[in-house]
Amino acid sequence: MAVTRSGPRVNFAAPRGFAKTFKSKFKETLFPDDPFGGFRNEKPARKSFKTLQYFVPVFEWFPKYNFSKFKFDLLAGITITSLAIPQGISYAKLANLPPIIGLYSSFIPPIIYAVFGSSKHLAVGTVAACSLLLAESIGEKVNVKENPDLYLHLIFTATFFTGIFETGLGFLRLGILVDFLSHSTITGFMTGTAVIICLQQMKGMLGLKHFTSKTDVVHVLKAILHNRKEWKWECFLVGMAFLIFLQFTRFLRNRKPKLFWVSAVAPMVSVAVGCIFAFFAPVEKHGIQIVGELKRGINPLSLKHLNFDPEYLPATIKAGVVTGLVAMAEGIAIARSFAIMKNEQIDGNKEMVAFGFMNILGSFTSCYLTTGPFSKTAVNFNSGCKSQMSNFVMAICMMLVLLFLAPIFKYTPLVVLSAIIMSAMIGLINYNEIIHLFKVDKFDFCICMAACLGVSFLTMETGLILSVGLAILRGLLYVARPATCKLGKIPNSELYRDMEQYPDATGVSGILALQIGSPIYFANSNYIRERTLRWIRDEESLSNSKSNTVEHVLLDLSGATAIDMTGIETLMEIRRILTARDIKFGIVNPRIEVLDKLTLAHFVDIIGKDSVYLSIDEAVEACQFSLETAKQDDDAS
Amino acid sequence: MAVTRSGPRVNFAAPRGFAKTFKSKFKETLFPDDPFGGFRNEKPARKSFKTLQYFVPVFEWFPKYNFSKFKFDLLAGITITSLAIPQGISYAKLANLPPIIGLYSSFIPPIIYAVFGSSKHLAVGTVAACSLLLAESIGEKVNVKENPDLYLHLIFTATFFTGIFETGLGFLRLGILVDFLSHSTITGFMTGTAVIICLQQMKGMLGLKHFTSKTDVVHVLKAILHNRKEWKWECFLVGMAFLIFLQFTRFLRNRKPKLFWVSAVAPMVSVAVGCIFAFFAPVEKHGIQIVGELKRGINPLSLKHLNFDPEYLPATIKAGVVTGLVAMAEGIAIARSFAIMKNEQIDGNKEMVAFGFMNILGSFTSCYLTTGPFSKTAVNFNSGCKSQMSNFVMAICMMLVLLFLAPIFKYTPLVVLSAIIMSAMIGLINYNEIIHLFKVDKFDFCICMAACLGVSFLTMETGLILSVGLAILRGLLYVARPATCKLGKIPNSELYRDMEQYPDATGVSGILALQIGSPIYFANSNYIRERTLRWIRDEESLSNSKSNTVEHVLLDLSGATAIDMTGIETLMEIRRILTARDIKFGIVNPRIEVLDKLTLAHFVDIIGKDSVYLSIDEAVEACQFSLETAKQDDDAS
Repeated sequence: MAVTRSGPRVNFAAPRGFAKTFKSKFKETLFPDDPFGGFRNEKPARKSFKTLQYFVPVFEWFPKYNFSKFKFDLLAGITITSLAIPQGISYAKLANLPPIIGLYSSFIPPIIYAVFGSSKHLAVGTVAACSLLLAESIGEKVNVKENPDLYLHLIFTATFFTGIFETGLGFLRLGILVDFLSHSTITGFMTGTAVIICLQQMKGMLGLKHFTSKTDVVHVLKAILHNRKEWKWECFLVGMAFLIFLQFTRFLRNRKPKLFWVSAVAPMVSVAVGCIFAFFAPVEKHGIQIVGELKRGINPLSLKHLNFDPEYLPATIKAGVVTGLVAMAEGIAIARSFAIMKNEQIDGNKEMVAFGFMNILGSFTSCYLTTGPFSKTAVNFNSGCKSQMSNFVMAICMMLVLLFLAPIFKYTPLVVLSAIIMSAMIGLINYNEIIHLFKVDKFDFCICMAACLGVSFLTMETGLILSVGLAILRGLLYVARPATCKLGKIPNSELYRDMEQYPDATGVSGILALQIGSPIYFANSNYIRERTLRWIRDEESLSNSKSNTVEHVLLDLSGATAIDMTGIETLMEIRRILTARDIKFGIVNPRIEVLDKLTLAHFVDIIGKDSVYLSIDEAVEACQFSLETAKQDDDAS
Repeated sequence: MAVTRSGPRVNFAAPRGFAKTFKSKFKETLFPDDPFGGFRNEKPARKSFKTLQYFVPVFEWFPKYNFSKFKFDLLAGITITSLAIPQGISYAKLANLPPIIGLYSSFIPPIIYAVFGSSKHLAVGTVAACSLLLAESIGEKVNVKENPDLYLHLIFTATFFTGIFETGLGFLRLGILVDFLSHSTITGFMTGTAVIICLQQMKGMLGLKHFTSKTDVVHVLKAILHNRKEWKWECFLVGMAFLIFLQFTRFLRNRKPKLFWVSAVAPMVSVAVGCIFAFFAPVEKHGIQIVGELKRGINPLSLKHLNFDPEYLPATIKAGVVTGLVAMAEGIAIARSFAIMKNEQIDGNKEMVAFGFMNILGSFTSCYLTTGPFSKTAVNFNSGCKSQMSNFVMAICMMLVLLFLAPIFKYTPLVVLSAIIMSAMIGLINYNEIIHLFKVDKFDFCICMAACLGVSFLTMETGLILSVGLAILRGLLYVARPATCKLGKIPNSELYRDMEQYPDATGVSGILALQIGSPIYFANSNYIRERTLRWIRDEESLSNSKSNTVEHVLLDLSGATAIDMTGIETLMEIRRILTARDIKFGIVNPRIEVLDKLTLAHFVDIIGKDSVYLSIDEAVEACQFSLETAKQDDDAS
């Protein structure tokens, strides 16, 4: 029996055309931030200039640049150079590269970033995790001791692929890929990496000459214990002294944020002190190794060294892609968090292109993988940088160092570098975050621990893959097992809410209202059918009297953002099953995309427009009306 | 300024404990149909008997079985036997196995299914697609002509692994895996398979002796044309005659459903006619090949032939798992669709266990992969079967055939078998469904075509993997780019709906209400932040006057079924950004799971309970009140 209804109705407009929905979906998928939205209605000349500005941010900020800003950037640039030198040398050692490569990597890439980068605060440089990851991946293929040149060239090649990969992703607007590295994965990965890097530094701290090329905790501990005859207590003492000094400056910074510069220049001071010490004292006799020869001069070209030998190609491509993903995730996350502090916006895809160019050109000029490291960026931010100019200043300073001062750093004791790395890594171990994860979300905690333990006890790649795999599994479970709930009316209102959440909400006898919160599609359609039928069984077993059985089932589709063919078939199936049991079936508030599909598939024609309601309240009223009429008919007969 | 609100409020109960939520989620994930729900409150003895009945359905239906039901099952059993003989021989040929293996496979497995199976209508047997898939996978490793024994033993081993895999999935309640084979994937896979199987049968139809072992269209067409000197027109004529006869009986059945038995016995009639013809006429002279020797006797044991040689292990395991998945998907889908017609319920996990036992024991007794084929099940259903007994009847009939009649089938011409297979396959090509997919959902159409074209032009496995990959990608896109929309008030109601869908809905100036329909988590949190900020930009660019800028942003979380740490961080970030811009942020109707997490993460404390609303209407009123007060304050000052 049709029920006449007044009031607002569901909009049964003709489904939108394919072209229209495809265009809007395409845009939502790849251009969620609508980058060209701001100047769509401008004149062509102005439009192309704006587009140029969009792609090459230097055209946007440089015209507005002035001397008062430059003063800040100069200071910031010099400060980050003082951090770049020790970090560059240290991380290059971590990647088993000649230390000078670390310095080269702080000259060309910052210039590229100053031109193409969109973050004002990001300082370019090498990062520990990616250095180790590169060393691990390429080290598997080529032994660095036996064939250092080939190893170096493969690292350049991997950097080149990283660049290509980053640029490609950026142009294809696939920033979406980085989204799959979740917060928990990154926390776990960083913690695990920090642990293994710290352990690895025991090589430097103890002055060991023999060590393992493996990175996991078990192998590294074994190597440390196995070579205990090589332990040098002098070396350890010096290392601990520097480590305590560095940790103290960090402690100071945490207590008095204004003293950030103390911890910023501390590594440089350590290196300087170490150099002077090593220059005057006969340290090598006591087993304290030094960096060794550093040639004067700026980056030599390395374009001709890129190695595309098919034998190594898979390894370099893989290393490039994996480290690229990690580097991007770190760089973009960092740029974003500092931008938020200043209420600015970062376009991840644009950043990717900038990182990509930086690494491609870097790989041509003897640099290895660079991104936006946290420590450098924080120092840059705290030094009051105003624009990408600080990166340019750093590049100039680094050029001067390379041209004139490089040989001085020859005397840097390795143990000082180890202390610098350890100190930086200890700061990355984030217990509080992990405890917080445990408290709030156990699954996130597992994802985090998978990364952390995987990195520590297996390999870095395995840890990353395990964790991302778990996270994606969770994502799939979200959609495969969407929460459904029974709705009840909240007293004194027209609102229908989850009866588990609002225990005083009451159901209407004979009517079962269910809410689905997820797209309905192949991965969950079986579940939705089973669950709906179970709700009906549960409802029927609750009610004892015969009059109380379910006569109407209402499916609230407000939360269903999409539906596919399998989903539509499922709704049809549910309807068939219910019809066989003499239960009426209605759907409530289908969203535009779902309604389009349901109309196209003739589902709306089958259940009838009268069974599609705009709100639960309206649907329940209509059902109650039909229940009462049926009762009156029964009574009358 | 706090707004005093009356009426129902959000329930800020303490978050549910981890144990409770974990238990309920675990149950929802693995036991969505609540299988033991029916007898939870029974006495222990009764409970264990019910559990036994649950796991071994024969204990449930046999006690209630009677002679009047048996009459129907006897008839159905005999009818499906007459289909099982030609199908068994044909599909065994398709799998490059001795024809007798096909007959064996219709003896033991149906008995097992009669005991463990839960579907009343499913008839057990071999299926074309899986036979070809097995032949393709194992044929890659071992050439059947050079080493037929090893090939046969590997097929048994693959069947054994299929059984182990199915049983394992069933016991682990991982029916969820089958859900990932979507309707579209199966439609495409079946169509593609039907096309290549039809083409393959040209070997039999043309009486070719040389052929390719590849399955793709290009190779098969090449083989047919390349061997055109072998074409036998006599053979082709006979084949076409049988094909036309078989297609005619199908046509008859479609026109008059009561004549279903005509098409059911047609294959048997064809075989009988073919045998008689071949027995009396000198067919082999004219190039019409016959099946050849069929030994009398029931299944020999094959347990000792299972081959776990490490050389072949990966291939057999892979073949077992892939064909197992396809077989299960087909079997369960078919059992389910017939159960729906009779308003009964099928438990996918229980079916998997039954299929698994069937294949494990089958592999011990010279059977190869069996499941529930569509054609046989349909015939069984139409013959009026009442229970699993019809499978048992078929097994007994097949035993009699094996013991006494097998040698008769020696004379079956191969061309008749080809005609039977082609006729069955032509029925599986479902144009209408594919056209329907194209009309309703373009992405589903792509998933379907990926399977169809992949199977036809590459390999069956590749097609399947491509299609499932696309489907999962789509699933991930659903969650990575959830639909958000701007809500407006529908005139003359308190309902807020998507303004794109309901063009006459109006927004309230100064307030932006957005709806999110998806779990909020790492894969979409960046998107949600970007999109929210874009909505605000769009809203601000729409309004020209200054008074009309956004002052309140309301996020309707009704559709968000879950949230993870990254999601919570994102909400915090959105709030920080909005606060920096002097925009107030409120959330509306968070569901229980989301509210639990937000409370645990102290998000509720940070934004204040006053900014968590139960309904959009209430939220808008509260915001309007604060807007007006602010305006009055402005006016007063």
